[in-house]
Amino acid sequence: MSKVVCFGEIMGRFNPDGFLRIVQGSSFHLSFAGGEANVAVALSNFGQRSSFVTKLPDNDLGVAAMRELRRYGVDVSDIVMGGDRLGLYFVEKGASQRASKVIYDRKHSAVTESVPDDFDWDRIFKDAAWFHFTGITPALSDGLAEIVKDALKAAKAKGLTVSCDINYRAKLWPEQKAGRVMRDLMPYVDVCISNEEDAEKVFGIRASQSDVSKGQISENGYRSVARRLAECFGFNTVAITLRGSLSASDNEWAGILYAGENFFVSPKYTVHLVDRVGGGDSFGGALIYGMINGFPAQKAIDFAVAASCLKQTIEYDFNQVTTDEVWKLVNGDASGRVNR
Amino acid sequence: MSKVVCFGEIMGRFNPDGFLRIVQGSSFHLSFAGGEANVAVALSNFGQRSSFVTKLPDNDLGVAAMRELRRYGVDVSDIVMGGDRLGLYFVEKGASQRASKVIYDRKHSAVTESVPDDFDWDRIFKDAAWFHFTGITPALSDGLAEIVKDALKAAKAKGLTVSCDINYRAKLWPEQKAGRVMRDLMPYVDVCISNEEDAEKVFGIRASQSDVSKGQISENGYRSVARRLAECFGFNTVAITLRGSLSASDNEWAGILYAGENFFVSPKYTVHLVDRVGGGDSFGGALIYGMINGFPAQKAIDFAVAASCLKQTIEYDFNQVTTDEVWKLVNGDASGRVNR
Amino acid sequence: MSKVVCFGEIMGRFNPDGFLRIVQGSSFHLSFAGGEANVAVALSNFGQRSSFVTKLPDNDLGVAAMRELRRYGVDVSDIVMGGDRLGLYFVEKGASQRASKVIYDRKHSAVTESVPDDFDWDRIFKDAAWFHFTGITPALSDGLAEIVKDALKAAKAKGLTVSCDINYRAKLWPEQKAGRVMRDLMPYVDVCISNEEDAEKVFGIRASQSDVSKGQISENGYRSVARRLAECFGFNTVAITLRGSLSASDNEWAGILYAGENFFVSPKYTVHLVDRVGGGDSFGGALIYGMINGFPAQKAIDFAVAASCLKQTIEYDFNQVTTDEVWKLVNGDASGRVNR
Amino acid sequence: MSKVVCFGEIMGRFNPDGFLRIVQGSSFHLSFAGGEANVAVALSNFGQRSSFVTKLPDNDLGVAAMRELRRYGVDVSDIVMGGDRLGLYFVEKGASQRASKVIYDRKHSAVTESVPDDFDWDRIFKDAAWFHFTGITPALSDGLAEIVKDALKAAKAKGLTVSCDINYRAKLWPEQKAGRVMRDLMPYVDVCISNEEDAEKVFGIRASQSDVSKGQISENGYRSVARRLAECFGFNTVAITLRGSLSASDNEWAGILYAGENFFVSPKYTVHLVDRVGGGDSFGGALIYGMINGFPAQKAIDFAVAASCLKQTIEYDFNQVTTDEVWKLVNGDASGRVNR
Amino acid sequence: MSKVVCFGEIMGRFNPDGFLRIVQGSSFHLSFAGGEANVAVALSNFGQRSSFVTKLPDNDLGVAAMRELRRYGVDVSDIVMGGDRLGLYFVEKGASQRASKVIYDRKHSAVTESVPDDFDWDRIFKDAAWFHFTGITPALSDGLAEIVKDALKAAKAKGLTVSCDINYRAKLWPEQKAGRVMRDLMPYVDVCISNEEDAEKVFGIRASQSDVSKGQISENGYRSVARRLAECFGFNTVAITLRGSLSASDNEWAGILYAGENFFVSPKYTVHLVDRVGGGDSFGGALIYGMINGFPAQKAIDFAVAASCLKQTIEYDFNQVTTDEVWKLVNGDASGRVNR
Amino acid sequence: MSKVVCFGEIMGRFNPDGFLRIVQGSSFHLSFAGGEANVAVALSNFGQRSSFVTKLPDNDLGVAAMRELRRYGVDVSDIVMGGDRLGLYFVEKGASQRASKVIYDRKHSAVTESVPDDFDWDRIFKDAAWFHFTGITPALSDGLAEIVKDALKAAKAKGLTVSCDINYRAKLWPEQKAGRVMRDLMPYVDVCISNEEDAEKVFGIRASQSDVSKGQISENGYRSVARRLAECFGFNTVAITLRGSLSASDNEWAGILYAGENFFVSPKYTVHLVDRVGGGDSFGGALIYGMINGFPAQKAIDFAVAASCLKQTIEYDFNQVTTDEVWKLVNGDASGRVNR
Repeated sequence: MSKVVCFGEIMGRFNPDGFLRIVQGSSFHLSFAGGEANVAVALSNFGQRSSFVTKLPDNDLGVAAMRELRRYGVDVSDIVMGGDRLGLYFVEKGASQRASKVIYDRKHSAVTESVPDDFDWDRIFKDAAWFHFTGITPALSDGLAEIVKDALKAAKAKGLTVSCDINYRAKLWPEQKAGRVMRDLMPYVDVCISNEEDAEKVFGIRASQSDVSKGQISENGYRSVARRLAECFGFNTVAITLRGSLSASDNEWAGILYAGENFFVSPKYTVHLVDRVGGGDSFGGALIYGMINGFPAQKAIDFAVAASCLKQTIEYDFNQVTTDEVWKLVNGDASGRVNR
Repeated sequence: MSKVVCFGEIMGRFNPDGFLRIVQGSSFHLSFAGGEANVAVALSNFGQRSSFVTKLPDNDLGVAAMRELRRYGVDVSDIVMGGDRLGLYFVEKGASQRASKVIYDRKHSAVTESVPDDFDWDRIFKDAAWFHFTGITPALSDGLAEIVKDALKAAKAKGLTVSCDINYRAKLWPEQKAGRVMRDLMPYVDVCISNEEDAEKVFGIRASQSDVSKGQISENGYRSVARRLAECFGFNTVAITLRGSLSASDNEWAGILYAGENFFVSPKYTVHLVDRVGGGDSFGGALIYGMINGFPAQKAIDFAVAASCLKQTIEYDFNQVTTDEVWKLVNGDASGRVNR
Repeated sequence: MSKVVCFGEIMGRFNPDGFLRIVQGSSFHLSFAGGEANVAVALSNFGQRSSFVTKLPDNDLGVAAMRELRRYGVDVSDIVMGGDRLGLYFVEKGASQRASKVIYDRKHSAVTESVPDDFDWDRIFKDAAWFHFTGITPALSDGLAEIVKDALKAAKAKGLTVSCDINYRAKLWPEQKAGRVMRDLMPYVDVCISNEEDAEKVFGIRASQSDVSKGQISENGYRSVARRLAECFGFNTVAITLRGSLSASDNEWAGILYAGENFFVSPKYTVHLVDRVGGGDSFGGALIYGMINGFPAQKAIDFAVAASCLKQTIEYDFNQVTTDEVWKLVNGDASGRVNR
Repeated sequence: MSKVVCFGEIMGRFNPDGFLRIVQGSSFHLSFAGGEANVAVALSNFGQRSSFVTKLPDNDLGVAAMRELRRYGVDVSDIVMGGDRLGLYFVEKGASQRASKVIYDRKHSAVTESVPDDFDWDRIFKDAAWFHFTGITPALSDGLAEIVKDALKAAKAKGLTVSCDINYRAKLWPEQKAGRVMRDLMPYVDVCISNEEDAEKVFGIRASQSDVSKGQISENGYRSVARRLAECFGFNTVAITLRGSLSASDNEWAGILYAGENFFVSPKYTVHLVDRVGGGDSFGGALIYGMINGFPAQKAIDFAVAASCLKQTIEYDFNQVTTDEVWKLVNGDASGRVNR
Repeated sequence: MSKVVCFGEIMGRFNPDGFLRIVQGSSFHLSFAGGEANVAVALSNFGQRSSFVTKLPDNDLGVAAMRELRRYGVDVSDIVMGGDRLGLYFVEKGASQRASKVIYDRKHSAVTESVPDDFDWDRIFKDAAWFHFTGITPALSDGLAEIVKDALKAAKAKGLTVSCDINYRAKLWPEQKAGRVMRDLMPYVDVCISNEEDAEKVFGIRASQSDVSKGQISENGYRSVARRLAECFGFNTVAITLRGSLSASDNEWAGILYAGENFFVSPKYTVHLVDRVGGGDSFGGALIYGMINGFPAQKAIDFAVAASCLKQTIEYDFNQVTTDEVWKLVNGDASGRVNR
Repeated sequence: MSKVVCFGEIMGRFNPDGFLRIVQGSSFHLSFAGGEANVAVALSNFGQRSSFVTKLPDNDLGVAAMRELRRYGVDVSDIVMGGDRLGLYFVEKGASQRASKVIYDRKHSAVTESVPDDFDWDRIFKDAAWFHFTGITPALSDGLAEIVKDALKAAKAKGLTVSCDINYRAKLWPEQKAGRVMRDLMPYVDVCISNEEDAEKVFGIRASQSDVSKGQISENGYRSVARRLAECFGFNTVAITLRGSLSASDNEWAGILYAGENFFVSPKYTVHLVDRVGGGDSFGGALIYGMINGFPAQKAIDFAVAASCLKQTIEYDFNQVTTDEVWKLVNGDASGRVNR
């Protein structure tokens, strides 16, 4: 089986207990997370061979991050050990009108300060069919943006399919810089994944009839976004996730896929959230899984939306659901009945 | 006060923390649970003398199970110590579209491998007015099915009222075998308790207008089920619980009682679930409590449904509510206002 | 900056884990709480200088309570150390139809048995602009009721604004006694805070069109309550919080302000509760913050209701939100979207 | 089997996690404990029928205390429900040079304020062969001292053997008062249990060659104490536990028995402490077990010292060891080898 | 690098918190453990390629066990999924005179009921240089004893070095049967590992001058045991671990190696135990690591004893130390000084 | 009361549970710690007014650190908010032969990147009598070394007493650089605190008769070290702590004081460690407390060594003992007897 190579940062994620705020916490749970790492784990859990490439500090925290990936069957043999520190982030879980909150402590992390010679893309892409990255990685440092470009060139040279989740993070870079850097990388991308805000923030492509701070989403408004993204950058596939933030406790969740000049719209789920962080990444992982396995477009978007709906009922970034569970939801059983 | 004798298995129940999946868990909470044990505890908490009969391994796990029953005032003097192991089960709590999940590890448990000579029913039924079992017990082994039959014969010989919760478990036996064995035991039963699926799975008696995987329940469809159960097996009372699985987080909950050829329908509650496992058992315990205390039929079904509604807001299998709390809900106060 | 002086009891608050009942608990979280202490912390967190006055036992529990206040920047220099014990209370979190439950173990606490000489109000009110107390404090003992009266006289003599949250607690005193004692204190009060039940229980002033046990609230019915309170006691401002108890999991929350013979009504929020205990106190703290900072009346009530809405998504009594977070909600963003 | 009746207080015991100080704690473990309750549990765990008599508040904390006793098989049918509060105490675990620390919060507890009519000693002593109390109970209130005296009279009238553990607590009463009250009760006592300090503090009977604050104990010095106690009060048996406090982490532990004018000295154990609180009570329980089962004196003291040595390796007040484990230690296997 | 193949059972291991007894526990930590799995993990942590072969149930518990091995880099590709259940065991940590306690619940586990066709030894031994098993595996079932023999034949046919840790478990089989079965397997073994009891229990070869229940060990007495084992079965190397059980808290630990008719004796460490379970396995893993890397005999035994000394300061079965940490101890730094 | 000003870094300190290694941890306890912050807290707990000066990031982690200091009564009004991140460190607790381990993640912390203008020393030293820093602070960055020098100049100009704990950290800077920078700062220092290694590592002043890796300390060897330090740099007082690392579980602990050309030697304690990190800082805090309160030299060193002995029985960096507890140990009661 050919593998999917994911490149980016994996961080330590600290959560205070339950609904405590960070400022109240005395006991924190450590898990590991990162946009591309989440995709690699999702793929591996679905049975798709995947590899995660990064640089980790050669201390117990770096080793623990590497081991956690290995636990899920992700190939870690191309991870480079070195550099100063593991990036960290702190997440507090919101509820009702109180939003979830994220504090990043990821500056100066090993991968952020990595250099082109750390990664031998020809070797890394041996046996690979697909390369995935997100807009977070080039946001971390100018050096990383260059390394991503190196990887993209190597990937295209080897004929890999390339997917990118735009994943704009205002805390990492301003919209203008994001637009400039990302525009430079998009020509190498085949499959573009975006959420209801990214396209506007990064590329200035705005949906009509939508105000995300009001918790309303209209899938119609995003059809034109998808089409324009495809037209601008030549993507063969554009997928957009649509999150309706009814509150920090309940969200609507749906997605649309634009492929071959057709639109495919998923059902819309109302999710009582356990942990929404990583929801978009689980969508990306499931979409890649569907595409690499040749699902028809409707089935691919339905699978990806159902998988990422279920992820949001699961603690921490990694998706822990099986394909059986996803298919059960795709097939309409959202009743949550116990099987015994 | 005459006692209610309950016979079956009590297991160790392991839960991972909060909403973690079993596969994510490193810390598990141990409680104790079992269909008939839950009924015995519910009765004892309501002030009704009850006894639980089983076989437990003579090790710390068996002792802990026995102590937990004793803690709630259940008479444990007829529990037999011996055999190999305590049955275990693992429960993960679902949320939203993700169903709760149960893994049984109860094969070869002490009670499953018990023999007729382990139980002296004449002695056990001294001072008893009622005998309760569920369809889980005969499902555990052919030997247990025989022992249940011995118990039923002794109970009827002593003039006890007999109740049975059909409690079909697909993981324990196929529908066909369940039907054959249970049909053989039903003639001894006076009070039959069923949920919205059992009667169909075990006896092929199907409700009209209902598709449980869609989360819809119609109490009308179950009236005919209750009547047909009573007609087939000569039950003097049939109680059916109706669960509408809106999601793994929110359920509808109601019940109907068929007695003296009349139907009594409870109010329907929408429950934001804390732990739904044991809900049916708490219904059974509350119903027996009502019947043994001579409640009129409407009051009995209202009490049983309200008690089991409240149970589903309580962690672990045992119901921990007082009769005062149940009456408050029966009387219409579902506001959850704090009393202080 | 002039300070707000709050006088009352701070207790140890024990919570069992998650949704466990007190009777199930083996591990309890200790936090600290009390009607007036909660106000002092809320004010200090908003940047308003505040002081808390009480008597605490000179043991580790008293020291821990004092330290916890100091942690939030509350001035503890007028706390008297002495007496026998720290008042305690136990809280279990309700869910759905099961109400939250409070067990008080606060009799004979140090402050309850304090004497007038423990407090030198002239010194305490140095640098103070505002004095706040609640109806809980005079309910604790006759001695405390006297001490409150001493404080009120001193406060008025110094020209402080005085606020009182009526906060009727049936477990502490009967309605009749509450009425008698509180009527004696009201002439010193400028700003009266009440919830939807207090005015009726203590002063016999009843809202029309309201039955709190049904979970319904009508802000119209409370307009007359506010006006009558102001007329009876000469308050210049009356604020009433309105809680609609849909269930123990979900509440409606709103407030009205009567000032200068005008009514100001806040938006109504539906809150998915994390911990509602302390909600009223966080309203009081935010209202005082608004008034001391000269907010116009509409802005004051909007701020207070939004702040206390957010508090109910936070564990334990103390409000842990920032003014930024409150303004975000006041300005209409209730979407709970993550900022990252 | 005749039962042993124990009378006194059972408290809630709060421990912070691990070696944290009380003042550091945010999570506290709740167990239940009390001098006489510990004896009742120890006896029941050894298979000796026992009953615990007290008064408990009719709230969740009182119910939880009662349930915990019932869990261990102690007869709770003579516990009176009523009164205000459950006595509490807080324990922090010392280490090395830092002593363990106890904060009592037991004033005004239900049993402390109980009255003679709460207890019908003739009914309580039905089926009883032995009555046990400690010096803590009369220390709690003058009323309780009277009630103990009533119980003693009734016990002697029924021919019960009476044991008393002197258990002096300086935090509860001064030495002089303890001496006066206890002298009044001693004539009813057959078996006197003391530690290396009690006899001196309460009755002024001092061991030679001993300075407990230096961590040294000399069993020789206590022979005369035992003899003088027996002579003064006519005890037929005197047992003295000897604790050498090497540090808060390691103690020496031994005991002597004086019976029939002969001395019986146990081996001395060096214990690496897990929890020393309740050590003396577990000695008392094991001694009563030995005496009621007719052990020869040497065997009785050896069993009692070994049992209480093992208790100090167990968390919380209740002894959780089996007679098999005690005999193994009595027979010389202190190697701690795993049996597998 | 050639790999070491380990065959046996991996179980779920449940520990109550801290020093609680199993019968007291409500929260249990789940780790994974097994004689041969512990060796595989130890080897992989030291950088030696290793593989673990077993059969695991295809449920979340089996998957979690497999993932935990994978986390440490152990090759899990030859694990067979199927069968009924994951073997479990419960461990409580002893202290001072109270021994640690193990309850096995491993009957009917998937590997215990595996059949010869489950394992294709020719494929499994591809790339392998060494095969390791313990006496626990043939003790689990007659079928497993046969499978082990199959494996041994295949291993010798391929020229692998074979090591066996005798690991006698009285709870699994009687001495006589162990002797008969193990004698049949020993001819295939090159490297025999034993503790101070195994050789006597299984083969009747007894050390002079030793009484393990007294906590004394004499390395002299074991020299003849090692020599006789080698002579009887033709082992080229015999290693014996020597544990002096001073108490459940403190043990002496040493080892001797007999190779080439010479004896090599390690230093003796006194270990303040954190968790001694898995100590012998960590010795085995470190010894194999030394031998496969061609360490001279003295260095090999020193490394193995130091590694397993350190393991006993680490929670749960798996050894988590690095070769650097082992060498530091081998080189004499046992001071436990912090490096910062 | 004049205050003691401490300047340096306060970090978040993450500990895995119990004796788990960092690499095993999933739940981490967050406390706050730093060489000079520990001194400020120790002083405040003893009743000595103290202030801590640093720069903290204006996020929840910075706020939590500030609040924790305030909780202990430390004056935080001169803390500057700003900069990027809170320094972090991870600590795992060693046992027996396994050393405790520290991972620093403190680079780029707010205070490390602070600039001279952040601190107005004239204002900061208002009301101050003493200034304390450690060798850690100038090690963090060249900028900080400059700022320390600014502070020292201002302190001397205002006539403050200056103390410095040399506190060499090999992970922060090489010995040569430490020597150069520290030699430049020493002329401003009055009271020098060192441990058994610092003087050698930083200034090349070596004790005779000592090999710290062997766990042996000889107070004689350090007399000359103290004298030479005083001679070299003109200190009026030199205090040296002596740690004998018997193992990671048990340490010897003592100190010597050189003042007025005389030596004062404390008793030597053997400590069964709970948490040794922060031990030296608690010594420094207690020494300053003694000196500022005019203790005679022998009393000062005895107090400081006893206080820091007790600290090592307490979890986390901050010392939580009272002066009463210290005096009890100074006066010879190391028995750890419970007071009740």
